Amino acid sequence: MTTTTLPAHDVKDLSLAPKGRLRIEWADRSMPVLALIRERFEREKPLQGVRLSGCLHVTTETGNLARTLKAGGAEVVLCASNPLSTQDDVAASLVADDGISVYAIKGEDNRTYYAHIRAALAFHPNVTMDDGADLVSSLLFIALGREDKLEPSLAAWVKALSAAERKAMLDAVIGGTEETTTGVIRLKAMETEGVLRFPVLAVNDAETKHFFDNRYGTGQSTVDGIVRATNLLLAGLNFVVAGYGWCGKGVAMRARGLGANVIVTEINPVKAIEAAMDGLRVLPMSEAAKIGDVFVTVTGNKSVLREEHFAVMKSGAVVANSGHFNVEIEIPALEKRAVSRRKIREFVEEFRLADGRALFLLGEGRLINLAAAEGHPASVMDMSFANQALGAEYMVKNHAGLGKKVHPIPTAIDAEIARLKLGAMGITIDRLTPEQERYLAGWEEGT
Amino acid sequence: MTTTTLPAHDVKDLSLAPKGRLRIEWADRSMPVLALIRERFEREKPLQGVRLSGCLHVTTETGNLARTLKAGGAEVVLCASNPLSTQDDVAASLVADDGISVYAIKGEDNRTYYAHIRAALAFHPNVTMDDGADLVSSLLFIALGREDKLEPSLAAWVKALSAAERKAMLDAVIGGTEETTTGVIRLKAMETEGVLRFPVLAVNDAETKHFFDNRYGTGQSTVDGIVRATNLLLAGLNFVVAGYGWCGKGVAMRARGLGANVIVTEINPVKAIEAAMDGLRVLPMSEAAKIGDVFVTVTGNKSVLREEHFAVMKSGAVVANSGHFNVEIEIPALEKRAVSRRKIREFVEEFRLADGRALFLLGEGRLINLAAAEGHPASVMDMSFANQALGAEYMVKNHAGLGKKVHPIPTAIDAEIARLKLGAMGITIDRLTPEQERYLAGWEEGT
Amino acid sequence: MTTTTLPAHDVKDLSLAPKGRLRIEWADRSMPVLALIRERFEREKPLQGVRLSGCLHVTTETGNLARTLKAGGAEVVLCASNPLSTQDDVAASLVADDGISVYAIKGEDNRTYYAHIRAALAFHPNVTMDDGADLVSSLLFIALGREDKLEPSLAAWVKALSAAERKAMLDAVIGGTEETTTGVIRLKAMETEGVLRFPVLAVNDAETKHFFDNRYGTGQSTVDGIVRATNLLLAGLNFVVAGYGWCGKGVAMRARGLGANVIVTEINPVKAIEAAMDGLRVLPMSEAAKIGDVFVTVTGNKSVLREEHFAVMKSGAVVANSGHFNVEIEIPALEKRAVSRRKIREFVEEFRLADGRALFLLGEGRLINLAAAEGHPASVMDMSFANQALGAEYMVKNHAGLGKKVHPIPTAIDAEIARLKLGAMGITIDRLTPEQERYLAGWEEGT
Amino acid sequence: MTTTTLPAHDVKDLSLAPKGRLRIEWADRSMPVLALIRERFEREKPLQGVRLSGCLHVTTETGNLARTLKAGGAEVVLCASNPLSTQDDVAASLVADDGISVYAIKGEDNRTYYAHIRAALAFHPNVTMDDGADLVSSLLFIALGREDKLEPSLAAWVKALSAAERKAMLDAVIGGTEETTTGVIRLKAMETEGVLRFPVLAVNDAETKHFFDNRYGTGQSTVDGIVRATNLLLAGLNFVVAGYGWCGKGVAMRARGLGANVIVTEINPVKAIEAAMDGLRVLPMSEAAKIGDVFVTVTGNKSVLREEHFAVMKSGAVVANSGHFNVEIEIPALEKRAVSRRKIREFVEEFRLADGRALFLLGEGRLINLAAAEGHPASVMDMSFANQALGAEYMVKNHAGLGKKVHPIPTAIDAEIARLKLGAMGITIDRLTPEQERYLAGWEEGT
Repeated sequence: MTTTTLPAHDVKDLSLAPKGRLRIEWADRSMPVLALIRERFEREKPLQGVRLSGCLHVTTETGNLARTLKAGGAEVVLCASNPLSTQDDVAASLVADDGISVYAIKGEDNRTYYAHIRAALAFHPNVTMDDGADLVSSLLFIALGREDKLEPSLAAWVKALSAAERKAMLDAVIGGTEETTTGVIRLKAMETEGVLRFPVLAVNDAETKHFFDNRYGTGQSTVDGIVRATNLLLAGLNFVVAGYGWCGKGVAMRARGLGANVIVTEINPVKAIEAAMDGLRVLPMSEAAKIGDVFVTVTGNKSVLREEHFAVMKSGAVVANSGHFNVEIEIPALEKRAVSRRKIREFVEEFRLADGRALFLLGEGRLINLAAAEGHPASVMDMSFANQALGAEYMVKNHAGLGKKVHPIPTAIDAEIARLKLGAMGITIDRLTPEQERYLAGWEEGT
Repeated sequence: MTTTTLPAHDVKDLSLAPKGRLRIEWADRSMPVLALIRERFEREKPLQGVRLSGCLHVTTETGNLARTLKAGGAEVVLCASNPLSTQDDVAASLVADDGISVYAIKGEDNRTYYAHIRAALAFHPNVTMDDGADLVSSLLFIALGREDKLEPSLAAWVKALSAAERKAMLDAVIGGTEETTTGVIRLKAMETEGVLRFPVLAVNDAETKHFFDNRYGTGQSTVDGIVRATNLLLAGLNFVVAGYGWCGKGVAMRARGLGANVIVTEINPVKAIEAAMDGLRVLPMSEAAKIGDVFVTVTGNKSVLREEHFAVMKSGAVVANSGHFNVEIEIPALEKRAVSRRKIREFVEEFRLADGRALFLLGEGRLINLAAAEGHPASVMDMSFANQALGAEYMVKNHAGLGKKVHPIPTAIDAEIARLKLGAMGITIDRLTPEQERYLAGWEEGT
Repeated sequence: MTTTTLPAHDVKDLSLAPKGRLRIEWADRSMPVLALIRERFEREKPLQGVRLSGCLHVTTETGNLARTLKAGGAEVVLCASNPLSTQDDVAASLVADDGISVYAIKGEDNRTYYAHIRAALAFHPNVTMDDGADLVSSLLFIALGREDKLEPSLAAWVKALSAAERKAMLDAVIGGTEETTTGVIRLKAMETEGVLRFPVLAVNDAETKHFFDNRYGTGQSTVDGIVRATNLLLAGLNFVVAGYGWCGKGVAMRARGLGANVIVTEINPVKAIEAAMDGLRVLPMSEAAKIGDVFVTVTGNKSVLREEHFAVMKSGAVVANSGHFNVEIEIPALEKRAVSRRKIREFVEEFRLADGRALFLLGEGRLINLAAAEGHPASVMDMSFANQALGAEYMVKNHAGLGKKVHPIPTAIDAEIARLKLGAMGITIDRLTPEQERYLAGWEEGT
Repeated sequence: MTTTTLPAHDVKDLSLAPKGRLRIEWADRSMPVLALIRERFEREKPLQGVRLSGCLHVTTETGNLARTLKAGGAEVVLCASNPLSTQDDVAASLVADDGISVYAIKGEDNRTYYAHIRAALAFHPNVTMDDGADLVSSLLFIALGREDKLEPSLAAWVKALSAAERKAMLDAVIGGTEETTTGVIRLKAMETEGVLRFPVLAVNDAETKHFFDNRYGTGQSTVDGIVRATNLLLAGLNFVVAGYGWCGKGVAMRARGLGANVIVTEINPVKAIEAAMDGLRVLPMSEAAKIGDVFVTVTGNKSVLREEHFAVMKSGAVVANSGHFNVEIEIPALEKRAVSRRKIREFVEEFRLADGRALFLLGEGRLINLAAAEGHPASVMDMSFANQALGAEYMVKNHAGLGKKVHPIPTAIDAEIARLKLGAMGITIDRLTPEQERYLAGWEEGT
């Protein structure tokens, strides 16, 4: 389908659309659950007339989500949730082939990034779909009159709005959904502070999301990003993973699967013991920094790698981030120590220090799996985005009864997605016999 | 320490005490957290005067728990929670060296098993410590006048009690603790039915318990039990694990670690997808039954392996259970099909079927890690039993404020155990900087 | 260094040289052994005046080998050993920055490929350095008067040579070296037939080569190539590896390390049992073909995937090759069955069959690790190419005493490379005590 | 079959025979290749009249080998190849049920051990079957007049023999076979010194032997022995493996598979790099000694763990050996440093040092897999002992043409065993097509 009139957009090059179309189609082969939802949405139009702004990584998988939302009747605006994660051919195809407004260019500067956020806000969405809570937090800053916290050009735009315009924009929102661990943490802080203005569904917390996307998805794509960026042989390297949550477990599992000697750093004793019993070394970062060959941060925290660590790293050490924001590595500290800086390969920057050591930063410290590779593979995003699509539908139908809080995805949705996915994978499992159901419900049978 | 007057007891052979003493001491080397608690208990006597009945696997690790409870001032009676799990030398040593009443004999028959439960009840415990909820459920049957549900000799004893005696026994109980997934499921069913008479702490649900004991403990000890029983080379065998909960994940991980080709069966779609993405085959049991060389059930359910499965298994197939109760394998169905039956090795029984096939049942279908090996190694039981000891203390101090429900272990206890364990393992981890604490508490910093 | 007069060459675009230079430098960081050899070669000039033609994959690692040979005094001509494996920026940099004659363009057609071989022959090399034995076999066809076996344009060139010219070309060669398993197999067939005209060193058979390059190098880079080409999540896929030699073991190990369910096909019973005991499924290809999601051939054989297999594959199956030649997958059979064909992603071609199924061929069936990724990482090529450099030096010094056979790399060279590599990895190992040396040399100490 | 007159023997307790019989039968279920050979031997009697002395670990698997040799017509005498490896019930059954002369008692002292060797020599064997070369080396000492190298009581017996008796004993031997790496090293030293008096087949070097038995067999059974002896949880422990040959690779693989953090020590740079690229830490023992929790030696060398290492080990460290001889751990040095010593568990001895540290030695430093567990599982011994049985047959038929050297097992035997084993495992593999056979034999097809 090619629309005759293109929607409003800001993408790199519309001529990339045919390539993007094929890549979206390729991803779609691995997203059977989302395809089933799309078929139903096409028939039932549950999102008819809903304006939806998504601030997401504009990848082939997101392309299929956007197509699904549109099939359901929604008007969709997409902006990037990270300056380096956009796939320009996908952005082009969504505009040219699907008539979806996309504002996203790979490598865009900070001002452009926020100009794109602005477009998503100016659309007056009824539903926000966030990956890191940038839309919701922007709306809150506006609602709270805290334009000083916004990026300057975005702040200027807000200040120029009339009170009525602001109110219209804020009142339009009935609810949101959030994709990431990091975003959910931010939203819960908003909830705790009592400033959240509408219900948000924590898509991240669905079992069919974080068990798979955060573990298998982040795991493979992070080592993929590092290998694409560096072509290093991981076998035999000391590979330091900061954080042993679901993402960290995934990265550690895959780095080890490629032969690395994995070292974990943690702040949580339970996770630290888990890492040790998984056969990994657990060290404080001050010790790990001295022996690591490759470092990956996946903590959701900031300044996990900082000046004190750069001070003791081996020459040649490679540092990368796969957590949501680019604050996990304290890049300013690295810049401060560096006497020279150059790009040595795509996504590999060398920082030469005064003592002669060279440290290598990958992908500007942004999500390396999206910067240097293609993000999570489609087969896990299938489940994550099925949660997004069904979550949006649920929000539209149920927002009135939901408090201004962070809500879990209903377990029925989670279970249904698992069931569909299992079927699509061609796997049959057992069912409880009536006798077993009785047994599990009772307590009387013992030794 | 040798007590001059021995407490009441029923153990196999007191002359085994010296051997048991050394083995308890050996386990104690790997239980530093429990040792620290024991030192404090010795000083503070938080359980002074408390009567505590434990229905537990009488192993070296339980020996150290019992010593800790006694050090805290408790009077302790121990009975077996499984007819095959008692280590007779440990039972002897606890009686002879620690003056603890123990009622447990490896291989005891069903009637003896319940005579031992009876001794634990007749002690009129203030606190019950269960591994499978047999003490609590017995008390409930008595309270509900359902002696018909009790084993006949136990029922006869109860019926012979005066109403006052029953009341005294029931009223003595202020609370309990429960060690296992299976027991917690039963207790929650009691809670749901509204019949639970006192608060119970779900020790199983502590992170420092089920993440470790159920996974690493059950994992290693189950394959250990199977190897000790059979001396089979696991490499290259089709190893079927029924259930992919924490225990099943542990067993699958270790079987694969020994070179087996692991097949998982499940009833839960999410766990089934996890197993598949962990690189394992997922099949319904009707298919797995045809190709498995070794089968292990770890489901908490009953009749997971049943007649329809025995009907299609290969000759030579080995079946074992590592779930709490011996109902996961439907042994009567196996007996019914068998034309002959003989013990071919310790813990290996051959069932010859009419069609000439031979199936091998390990350890009478009871927990194979306790029947043929020594149960969970001490270093994981250190955390599990630290939860038991601190849970008992918590119950004594706080029972009045706790409803007649299943309660979680307080997170402070869980965290403290993790901290102590980590220290004992010699592992140092990171601490949040003040800047990081602020960052994690806020929501304002975004892209 | 920029040479003022460029050597003869045929590369894609000399303006890519700066990018290639940096990438060569990056690889050089992981090639410390070759760097040490280069330093010595620079001083000692052991290859002074030697004309050396290398038919190799023109990658960053080969760049550092070529620089080393030149440092040793050799005049070097490089041509591609595979039409898809050339890195054009590297080719440019070698010409522009190092003054090395390079004839290689990524994606060159067959005729160009052979025009480049011709250039390497026309150089009248004293030493050939092959990766697949294409230079040596071309020389043999010429020597045997079998121009009919040569590619037509190459044949035409040969026929136009005078007898004296041919003789000069043939007589110039004092010996060769060979990098691959496939090449060594071909050379041994030549030796068996009695047609080999000069000694060749089997670099492939050095322990420091095939234990590492073929296993860890092919392993990582093959799955890397497949992931780059497809962005498929490997976790949970049926991943079929044809061949369980060193390369196949490496690929299987890494695919499993990324969560795939690995199936192995073999023709050798011993290797098949090894695969089974490594916990993998072993099937004949006729069975594996029905259930595989991804197929990789690493056999050194031809038509390993052929019409009968394409006939039963699932729609969506992905087929790739990581063996030396592109005959392991019978592409003509695939073409014959296809009703349509299109490129859906870079290096992914869809073949639509009459029955509606779609099969996907990666990288035209050529070495996927070189076609879609960057070939073996530098740290393994460090050892492989250290063998090449020292092998060339050895050949120059010792060719007179070597028969017209395939010779192993001298063990002293192999051991020296291992020692240097270990030092470069910062690893210290034990040394035998005098007592241990005596013990190992004797036989008299027993029980 | 119960023989009416028992053969000469020295075993612990003949009443154990029925238990041993069942255990031999159990092992036989996993030894289908040996069973096929036994059937043929029964028909063809290829060893008719041959006197064969085997100095082997007297386990259930050896029981099936002995039964096979006897089925082939041989007269068999078995003595133990290690004082701790005998399974007394098996020894009893072989005597009582099979009429085989066995001289072996678990835990026998050194003098008894050599009395049993003497019985094997006094039998005047035509074929020796060694596991560590103790029979062959004893014969050589006798031949060389070096009785001073023999154990005193054995020496005394030899000295009492007449020259004719000695000659008869020596001349009777037509050849031998050897099971182990250690034995083959000793035999090659004999060959090098020119003292070997008859041909010996290096069974160890068959692919169907050392690829499987040394790796999967030693791997599983060694960790099994350590776990049985200690009940330690391996997860999270620093597990030091000395030696990364086939046995060490197996042990490391299995220890890691149980969650240990594996550290390797080596003297060979190539193996050290392999270990590092397998993701393991490689350290000199002087460093590993400081951090190891468990140590296993599998080197074939002596004093691998010695005084300097005991001096720095952590209190609680566990040391075990799985190499052939008990000299890998320098036990005298440990005894010298100890101020007290006690057995704390079966196969666990505590050495208390003057500085208060406690070190734990397993199984007296003898092969821990045989001392504390049951040795290699039957399914690998099936292949190893198939080589022994066919090797003995080959030696009987071909000894005349074989020089006084160490000979490989003929590849045809090796291949036949692999083929039979594969069939018994129910695995089907591919066969070369005629086109593929031509391709592999030729060199003409290239790029």
